Amino acid sequence: MSGHSAGAEIERLIQLLARLPGLGPRSARRAALQMLGKKETLMRPLADAISQAADHVLTCSTCGNMDTKDPCSICTDTRRDAGVICVVEHVADLWALERAGANSGQYHVLGGTLSALDGIGPDDLNIAGLVDRISGGDVREIVLALNATVDGQATAHYITDQVQSYGASISQVAHGVPVGGEMDYLDDGTLAAAMKARRPF
Amino acid sequence: MSGHSAGAEIERLIQLLARLPGLGPRSARRAALQMLGKKETLMRPLADAISQAADHVLTCSTCGNMDTKDPCSICTDTRRDAGVICVVEHVADLWALERAGANSGQYHVLGGTLSALDGIGPDDLNIAGLVDRISGGDVREIVLALNATVDGQATAHYITDQVQSYGASISQVAHGVPVGGEMDYLDDGTLAAAMKARRPF
Repeated sequence: MSGHSAGAEIERLIQLLARLPGLGPRSARRAALQMLGKKETLMRPLADAISQAADHVLTCSTCGNMDTKDPCSICTDTRRDAGVICVVEHVADLWALERAGANSGQYHVLGGTLSALDGIGPDDLNIAGLVDRISGGDVREIVLALNATVDGQATAHYITDQVQSYGASISQVAHGVPVGGEMDYLDDGTLAAAMKARRPF
Repeated sequence: MSGHSAGAEIERLIQLLARLPGLGPRSARRAALQMLGKKETLMRPLADAISQAADHVLTCSTCGNMDTKDPCSICTDTRRDAGVICVVEHVADLWALERAGANSGQYHVLGGTLSALDGIGPDDLNIAGLVDRISGGDVREIVLALNATVDGQATAHYITDQVQSYGASISQVAHGVPVGGEMDYLDDGTLAAAMKARRPF
């Protein structure tokens, strides 16, 4: 877009929108135009929502979740089982498990996985915080819900090494055929894992 | 996402982001998390850019372009040929032509096309404004740069009917093989149009 035709304000808006995941330069332009056509119903509420979230959303210093308070509403929820900690890579994974209602315990967000290729070591992840939480002795079970990738599994092994001396049992989410998934569309690794982990019917 | 796990501020942000074209609920969540990880470098500048654009960007009352002044910087640019008006459907089309440097004249943004199916008639488009600009008699040529769709072409015919009494010549952008396009990937309509409009080489 030429600055001449649309003004620096629009150009700056498009540049920033294009930095969001899922929006390229072209869709950022479409998004900007869509907004400008809905100033009162979309544009100003969005600017306000972004500012509000930037002001009020914190990273929980206990588990790494994002919330408007620290410790977060999950960490302070006494109805949840504080004896179970589900370890995830990202906040998005925590949200996915919450949407599914799959975990009634607590969480711990690592912030990524170990990766030799990307130069991410144990100190770059929130592993010390996890060990610290477990060392108190009140945690019965650690559920590893990391991605089924090479890095995810390497990280799972590393965490197991770090925490096994504290006596909590360590489990991992099951790998197998997704519910609703069709066998002949699945990759070899998933099918092999599903066969290996077969259970009495 | 459960409000419990992430707070009303994030939920509201995600809902508004999901209303942008190109972002669904899932990518809106990713975008929100991406922002929250870059509060100072992305999130606050974006909120600011949206507010600034909402405050300062206007629709040009002459041509329908969006700019920070009215009349817009194209309408007030005396180096441009005021005798030529290029008629487009949307502001995005105007921007595309400006990026290409394809038009040294003025523009007129209709705001869409006639569409019996969607109930869009002449009064819903900025056609009266176009007739008004042409009726002064200073416009030599009207270039129709509407989409090569049924509705776009119906609109082109309607506009031709409305303005031909004022003496300006009326032209339409050429339809044919896109530059860089390969013949065997093109649709029948484009190939037929390209053959019909062939020119001496």
